[in-house]
Amino acid sequence: MLLRMSRLFLRTLREDPAEAEVPSHRLLLRAGFIRRAAPGGFTWLPLGLLTLDRVTAVVRAEMAAIGAQEVQFPALLPRELYEATGRWTEYGPDLFTLKDRRGADYLLGPTHEELFTALVRDTYSSYRDYPLSLFQIQTKFRDERRPRAGLLRGREFLMKDSYSFDLDDAGLAASYAAHRAAYQRIFDRIGLRYTIVAAMSGAMGGSASEEFLAEAAVGEDTYVSCPACGYAANTEAVITPAPAAPVVEWPPAEVLDTPDTPTIESLVDRVNAMAAGGRRDWNAADTLKNVVVKLRPPGAATDQILVIGVPGDREVDLKRLNAVVAPATVELFEAADFAGHPDLVRGYIGPQVLAKLGIRYLVDPRVVPGTAWVTGANEPDRHAVHVVCGRDFTPDGTIEAAEVRVGDACPQCTTGALVMKRGIEIGHVFQLGRRYAEALGLTALGADGTPITITMGSYGIGLSRMVATIAEQYADERGLVWPAAVAPVDVHVVATGTGSQIETALRIGDSLVARGLRVLVDDREGTSAGVKFTDAELIGIPRAVVVGRRLVDGYLELRDRAAGTRADVSLDEIVDEVCSGL
Amino acid sequence: MLLRMSRLFLRTLREDPAEAEVPSHRLLLRAGFIRRAAPGGFTWLPLGLLTLDRVTAVVRAEMAAIGAQEVQFPALLPRELYEATGRWTEYGPDLFTLKDRRGADYLLGPTHEELFTALVRDTYSSYRDYPLSLFQIQTKFRDERRPRAGLLRGREFLMKDSYSFDLDDAGLAASYAAHRAAYQRIFDRIGLRYTIVAAMSGAMGGSASEEFLAEAAVGEDTYVSCPACGYAANTEAVITPAPAAPVVEWPPAEVLDTPDTPTIESLVDRVNAMAAGGRRDWNAADTLKNVVVKLRPPGAATDQILVIGVPGDREVDLKRLNAVVAPATVELFEAADFAGHPDLVRGYIGPQVLAKLGIRYLVDPRVVPGTAWVTGANEPDRHAVHVVCGRDFTPDGTIEAAEVRVGDACPQCTTGALVMKRGIEIGHVFQLGRRYAEALGLTALGADGTPITITMGSYGIGLSRMVATIAEQYADERGLVWPAAVAPVDVHVVATGTGSQIETALRIGDSLVARGLRVLVDDREGTSAGVKFTDAELIGIPRAVVVGRRLVDGYLELRDRAAGTRADVSLDEIVDEVCSGL
Repeated sequence: MLLRMSRLFLRTLREDPAEAEVPSHRLLLRAGFIRRAAPGGFTWLPLGLLTLDRVTAVVRAEMAAIGAQEVQFPALLPRELYEATGRWTEYGPDLFTLKDRRGADYLLGPTHEELFTALVRDTYSSYRDYPLSLFQIQTKFRDERRPRAGLLRGREFLMKDSYSFDLDDAGLAASYAAHRAAYQRIFDRIGLRYTIVAAMSGAMGGSASEEFLAEAAVGEDTYVSCPACGYAANTEAVITPAPAAPVVEWPPAEVLDTPDTPTIESLVDRVNAMAAGGRRDWNAADTLKNVVVKLRPPGAATDQILVIGVPGDREVDLKRLNAVVAPATVELFEAADFAGHPDLVRGYIGPQVLAKLGIRYLVDPRVVPGTAWVTGANEPDRHAVHVVCGRDFTPDGTIEAAEVRVGDACPQCTTGALVMKRGIEIGHVFQLGRRYAEALGLTALGADGTPITITMGSYGIGLSRMVATIAEQYADERGLVWPAAVAPVDVHVVATGTGSQIETALRIGDSLVARGLRVLVDDREGTSAGVKFTDAELIGIPRAVVVGRRLVDGYLELRDRAAGTRADVSLDEIVDEVCSGL
Repeated sequence: MLLRMSRLFLRTLREDPAEAEVPSHRLLLRAGFIRRAAPGGFTWLPLGLLTLDRVTAVVRAEMAAIGAQEVQFPALLPRELYEATGRWTEYGPDLFTLKDRRGADYLLGPTHEELFTALVRDTYSSYRDYPLSLFQIQTKFRDERRPRAGLLRGREFLMKDSYSFDLDDAGLAASYAAHRAAYQRIFDRIGLRYTIVAAMSGAMGGSASEEFLAEAAVGEDTYVSCPACGYAANTEAVITPAPAAPVVEWPPAEVLDTPDTPTIESLVDRVNAMAAGGRRDWNAADTLKNVVVKLRPPGAATDQILVIGVPGDREVDLKRLNAVVAPATVELFEAADFAGHPDLVRGYIGPQVLAKLGIRYLVDPRVVPGTAWVTGANEPDRHAVHVVCGRDFTPDGTIEAAEVRVGDACPQCTTGALVMKRGIEIGHVFQLGRRYAEALGLTALGADGTPITITMGSYGIGLSRMVATIAEQYADERGLVWPAAVAPVDVHVVATGTGSQIETALRIGDSLVARGLRVLVDDREGTSAGVKFTDAELIGIPRAVVVGRRLVDGYLELRDRAAGTRADVSLDEIVDEVCSGL
C-alpha cells in the first residue's frame, strides 16, 4: 500500500483545537486521524482508520490463537432479552433506547451478554459441545453522562467483546486464564505499558474480575499497587482488611456538649481540650463520621436512606461507593432532605439511634465490634465518646466506601505501603458465572442426562479507546510516535524538493511496497521541507526516509521517530536498511 | 486458516426454518451462516462472517484501485445536519430516531450524504484539492415497514457507500464512470449475473442514476430490457415516449348515458354497442382512466388531491407512482374520501372539470394534445366521447405512473419489444449534483478567487445483501454453491471415518494452509459419512477432498461442488491438484 500525501484526505492542524482536553485527543485531531462528528462520536479519517485496523488485526489474531470464534450481532436489539436479565432497567440512563415505527422498544447494545447467551442456548445442547469461546468486533453505544477526552470516553465506540462458556468452575478458570494471557500478548505486542489490577465487576454481575489499566496521567481510573508484594487493584476494588477486634472494657458512652465543632478537626480539638474520657490524644481516626446518602435502586421511583460510617480521618469516596452499590446509584443527603427527616440531626448523627429509626447503617471494615468511637449524639451541639461497636450500636454490615490513600497498608501482604497511579481501562476480564445462563436458560445435557447450567466469562477490549491510549503513551511535544506494530504505515518517505526528489521518493516507496511495507510518500509540490518535517513528526510514523539535498551525492537520510536519530544511507542501500530495521 | 468442524460454532439444520421465505434466507439459516436476532436484524455466525469479510475485501480493493479513500462515520448522528438538508423530515418513518439523556434528537444513519459533505467542507478549501472520492464500510439502519427475505431487506445492514466530489459536471461524469467501472469489476470478480439499469434517484435527489440489479426470481425490483438495442431500466424509471400529436379535427365532445359500466371493459362494450361517435371499434386504449390519489408531502400533516389520467388499457402502478413522487407518498382515494368530495363523481371522473375544481391533473405521456378520449362525464352513469386533450381539458403536466408491460415498445430504439425481469439491487450509482453542497455550503475557492460549488456523486453497494444475492444465484437443491472468490473457505476436507482418516485429513489441511488456502476439515468423530457429505453440500465450499475408504490404497476423492464432478487423486498429488484448480 502506497499513500501519496498529495492526494491523501488529510489536513494537519498547526494549533491545538479548543475542543480537545487531553494530549491524545489533541494530537489525533491535529494529525488528522479523527474528527468530531457528534457529542462522543468520531469520524475516522484515513490515517486513523488504518491505525484502528491494525489494532483490530492484532486483537483478532490473538483471539483466534486461543480458539475463540468470531461472530457479529446487530447493534439494534429488541428489549425482550434485556428485560429477561433485568438489564433493561439496571443499565439506567446510559442505555440508548428507541421505538421502531410500530412502537416496539429497542436498545442500542452497550454489551451483548444476553445475545451471546441466547445464541449458544439456541445452538448447542450437549456437554460435548463445550468449552466454547466466541467473540465479536462491534460498535457499542452508551449514553455517557459526560463524553470526554475524545476516543477515551465516547458514546459510540468499537469493542472486541468475547464470552466463554464452560461446564464448571474449573473450565471457567481455564477460559479466564486463556483470555487473560491473550490480553497480555495483545498489549505486549502493541507495546502498551499497563498493569493488571483487581476490579469491581460493576453492572455485569459476577465474581472474579480484573482490569488492564494503561498508565496515563489522564486516565479516569485510579489504582493502587504494592511495591512489596505486587498486589494491584483498582481503587474501587481495594479490600480494606478488618483489624482484630480489640478486647477492651470501655467505659460507658458519655455525651458531651460540643458546640461549634462543624468539622472533624474542630471536634478533635474540642475533645482534646476538654480531656474527654480523660484523654488528650484523640485524633481524627478515633472519630466515626456518619454520612447520609440516598440510594436509588435501578428503575426505582424513590430513594432509600442509607447511613455510612467511616473513621473521621477519611472521606467517603463517592466513586468507590457508587461502584459498590451499582447498578443502584447514590447521592448525598442535602439540606432539603434533612429538613424532611428531623430525627437525623445534621452534623451530629451517631449510629446509636439508627436501628430504632429503621435506617440501614453500613460501616467501613475498620469499624469492628469492640472499637470505641467519638461520634454524634443525635442532638444539636452534642457528641458522645466511648460509643462502642457491638455494644452501643450494631451495623447492618460493612461497605467499601472510604477513600483509599497513598501509604495505606497493602491488603495482601499487610506490610507494604500502597502507591497510587492513574490509568486508562483498556481491557477487562470477568468471571461472570451463571447469572446470564440462569436468567436465559442456558444449560447443557450432561453425560448422565441431567442438565448443567453453563458458567460464563466475559472479556472486553476497547479498540477505539486503545488507539487513543497508545497516543497517550507514545507522543512527545512534536507529535505522535506510533509503535511499529500499529503505525498506520511503516515508512514515511519525505521528498523535500520537487522533480527528481519526488520521483525518487515515489520509486523508493514502490520498492518498499514490493517488500511488503505500507508506505506514505510526501510528494507534495510547493510545500516547504519544514512543513513536511513538521507534519511527519506530528503524524509519527516510526521511520522516515528523507529524500533531500544530498540526493545529488546518492545519499538519503533515515530517521527514527522514537529515538530521534538520523543516519545517512546510500540510495542503493536504503530499502534494505529500512527493511532490516523492522 | 484451518477450521475444524469438531469445534466450529455451527449446527446445520435438516429442515427449512418456518421463518424463511426465500431460498437464500433458508439456505443461509440451514447452513449456519446467519441467525435471526431481531426483526430485520441478523447475527453473523463464523461461516457467514468469513463470507461477508471476503465480499467486503473485494469491494475495498476495487475502491482503493480507483483512488477512493476510506473513512468511517458514526452511526448515531445528531439531527442538525439532516435538518439542514431537509432529510430529517423527508426520510419519513424509515428513519430510526431517538433522544439522548439530555433530550437531544438523534438518528441512526440510513445514508451519510450530509456527513461526507460537511467533512469535506471542513477539511478542504481550494480547487487544487479536487477531485476527491471517499468511502466507508459501515452499518446502516432503516426502519423498513416490512423487513423480509432475510438479509435482502433488513433494518440493520452493512453497506459500502462512497461519494465523489468534483469541481464541474465533466469531473462528476468521470468520477461516476470510474465508480461504475469499479462496480462492474466487483460484481464480475464475485461472479454475479447482473444488469445495469437506468434508475430513479428516489429520496437522494440528483439527476443521472443507475442500478446494478442481480437477476433473481425473488428480487423486489422489476426491470425491463430491450433485446434489440440493449436498453435497460428499472420499471420505476422507464420513460414513456410521447407519441406525435395527431392533427385531427375531432367532433365536439358528446355526453352519453352509460349506466352499468363499472369497468373499462364494460364501458368499451357499451360504447361499441351504441356505436358512439359513429364507431364500433373502440378499445380500452381509447378510454382515459382517471385515478384519484392523496399525495402527502414529507412531514406534511394533510394530503393534497391529485388526479392521474392513464389510457384505460393500463393500470396505475403504485410502485412507479410512489417512486416518481418520492419523498412524498401517495395513497388511493377511498370511498370515505369520495364522500367528502361530491364534485368527484366516483367511476365517472373526467378531466373536463378538474381545472375548475382546482384539482391538479397529471397524465400519462401518451395523453398528448390533440388526442381524443372516452372518459367520465362527471355525472353518475354518464361518459363522454371525443374529449380532446388541449381542447376540452389541459393537464397540469405528465407523470410516469402507468404500468409498464412486456412487449411495450423500447423507449430508446422505439422498435424493440421490452422484456421484463426481476432483480435484487446490489449497487446504485447516482449523480447527486449540487443539492448537498448547496445545502451545507461546500465550495472550493477557484483559481480566480471565486467560490465553486462542488458537485457530488453517491455510490452504494449492499454488502450483507450481496451475500444473500450470491446465495440466490449460486445454490441448488442440495445447498449453497459459493463462487471461489467469496467462499468462506477454499477447501473442505472431509474425513469419512476415524483415526487415520481424520489424521490424514488434518495433515492435508495443514499442507493446504501452508499453500495459502483457507481450509475447513470435517474431523468429527461419530458422525456418519452421509451426514458429513450432506453438510458439505449444504455449506457449499467450491472444492472438497474426501478422505475415505480408498485411503488405504493411497487415494482420495476430489469433488467440485458446482460441477458435481468427482475424481480420484493420489495422496501425493492432492495438494498440488487442489491448488492447481484455484
